[in-house]
Amino acid sequence: MESSTVTPENDDERHARMVLCHVVAAGDPRVGSALRQSGAIRTVHQILNGTSPLPHSKTTLARLIENGTSLSDLVARDHQTAQRLEARFCIPGDREWPRQLEDLGDRQPIGLWLQGEANLRLLALRSVAMVGARAATSYGELVARTIAGELTARGWLVVSGGAFGIDAAAHRGALGAGGATVCVLAGGVDVPYPRSHEAMLGRIAREGLLISETPLGGAAQRQRFLTRNRVIAALTRATIVVEAALRSGSRTTAREAGELLRPVMAIPGPITSPMSAGCHELVRDARAVLVTGTDEIVELVGGFEESTARTPELDADIKETDPRARRVLGVLSGQGAAPLEVLARSAGLSPTDALVALGILEARGAVRRTDCGWIKEA
Amino acid sequence: MESSTVTPENDDERHARMVLCHVVAAGDPRVGSALRQSGAIRTVHQILNGTSPLPHSKTTLARLIENGTSLSDLVARDHQTAQRLEARFCIPGDREWPRQLEDLGDRQPIGLWLQGEANLRLLALRSVAMVGARAATSYGELVARTIAGELTARGWLVVSGGAFGIDAAAHRGALGAGGATVCVLAGGVDVPYPRSHEAMLGRIAREGLLISETPLGGAAQRQRFLTRNRVIAALTRATIVVEAALRSGSRTTAREAGELLRPVMAIPGPITSPMSAGCHELVRDARAVLVTGTDEIVELVGGFEESTARTPELDADIKETDPRARRVLGVLSGQGAAPLEVLARSAGLSPTDALVALGILEARGAVRRTDCGWIKEA
Repeated sequence: MESSTVTPENDDERHARMVLCHVVAAGDPRVGSALRQSGAIRTVHQILNGTSPLPHSKTTLARLIENGTSLSDLVARDHQTAQRLEARFCIPGDREWPRQLEDLGDRQPIGLWLQGEANLRLLALRSVAMVGARAATSYGELVARTIAGELTARGWLVVSGGAFGIDAAAHRGALGAGGATVCVLAGGVDVPYPRSHEAMLGRIAREGLLISETPLGGAAQRQRFLTRNRVIAALTRATIVVEAALRSGSRTTAREAGELLRPVMAIPGPITSPMSAGCHELVRDARAVLVTGTDEIVELVGGFEESTARTPELDADIKETDPRARRVLGVLSGQGAAPLEVLARSAGLSPTDALVALGILEARGAVRRTDCGWIKEA
Repeated sequence: MESSTVTPENDDERHARMVLCHVVAAGDPRVGSALRQSGAIRTVHQILNGTSPLPHSKTTLARLIENGTSLSDLVARDHQTAQRLEARFCIPGDREWPRQLEDLGDRQPIGLWLQGEANLRLLALRSVAMVGARAATSYGELVARTIAGELTARGWLVVSGGAFGIDAAAHRGALGAGGATVCVLAGGVDVPYPRSHEAMLGRIAREGLLISETPLGGAAQRQRFLTRNRVIAALTRATIVVEAALRSGSRTTAREAGELLRPVMAIPGPITSPMSAGCHELVRDARAVLVTGTDEIVELVGGFEESTARTPELDADIKETDPRARRVLGVLSGQGAAPLEVLARSAGLSPTDALVALGILEARGAVRRTDCGWIKEA
């Protein structure tokens, strides 16, 4: 992994951030401010010697390293878990770090744990968040699944939170369309939550990415759901609320997206359904645009081509970070449209690996799905 | 009826307008312009002697009075039919003429045929149009019926077009709530259309009003539905579109209402329902406000109290035009809240007559319905 092959100095910064994830609250702008002023290594030292202004940090850290455990032990334990999960820790400045997270300013994540082979930055280039009620109706789930599938088929990455209801329907719609999907978890990437979604989350890790700013082993606590929502909003180019009750968590995501100047969209539903009331309120308050289908969504988030014009750096990313993508691109350069199975065989890859590669290339705009299979963009 | 007790000069004007309804197209601004410049009597003369610029009017009139029929015969025939129906012909300048129709400028109706005992002007003071698809879904009909009932219970008059689907559900909701409703027909008030709504239209004539600018006996032709929609839009303070397909007649009404600066509202529905697609499009194009219930509608059309502050003229209208209203008001002045049956008995009226009276008084803001019955406003 790109983000693992770092220089020693980077390792210190990375390890300090790993420690900080254990010690301070995610999304606290005071943490971001401390990191900006002092860097992660000095911030950890300040916490250790009691000169950090960050609340509770000293006691929390003291508790973590009591009974003879050192900071190095803490980092080593994370590394061990990460190795078992094939997870990696990505920090600002890494090539894989999505630049759009910088829009969060001092609330930018300290770092993100990633599980899955796809490149987060490339995947997220062309992504939308799809969120909504856990207690979704069958209408809401149908809509989420259908639109997520259509967005995926058009080369858009669907990002959601892995929860019951709309989140799961969105992930499943994307997976069902043969594409990748990203799930931003509230707990650690090694803490499947909700438990009954373990199989789905496993599939997302294989075919897309599980990501979280919560340290490994961290529980999915209430506060973490709220702060997690800002990551979903910031990572993506727009947020779609499919169903939401009047007071619902999805509205946090919508508010964050609005504050980040990302388009917010809401799907209408029957006025007799309390699960559509939150969507209708967003539209009435002009905090969301009413959308009724994939065309309208793509129209609103469009302009991809202009905003992510090919750069030498991005081309290098594709070639360097994923040998599978390079192989797939090589096969496609020699022929017209090819279905997935043919492509995988020609490239000597498993269908799953070929899909991941196509996901990366599609997010980059380098390949396109047609009725006859995949083709290389001119 | 007030509008029948006219002076002879008025009679000539009224009869000329009756004739014009037979001869020229409703809603044609050239007719309005001719009436403004020459008056109805001279306009008819100009048509007779071939100097009128109104297209086809001479041939149409010639056909009407061929075989020895005179203009007086034509008027006499209308009078006969009207007498049988207990209908009346109301023209601009009449006390019962709704002033808001003047907003149509040269497209103001030449006159309106009314069937029913209520006073159109008083009823329409506090009215909303509810329109929508003929091929409505059960969801749309439920919503129309429910909201029309709630609006009626709050003292708002629901106006619609008597058609299948949303229109009928709106009328039925209003009637079911024990209130009046107004149906603006495309054909003559003596031409029940659609035929299977004959019973409902009869009930509307008894408990509310049937109105039409089409001459007596006039068929419900396609063009008349379109021009009729402007009357619905102009008569009311706002238009609510409950369900509409992408290309639907309700959108004419919405456009007319928008052009008349009346609020236009649309009810959302499932994006999987083609019958809600027109509503969603209105909202997306900012031609309608999304509303999800009666509270939101009343909020938008509110401000009734200010805009129709009590005037001596209106008070006189209530007292002079409807002796039943006077009697009901007299009963209510002497006591607190009274249920309909008690009120009717005390006033010596049938329950239906008492309801009509209460409708008039409620539209005027003179009485209010409470959980314990009707009370007189302070």
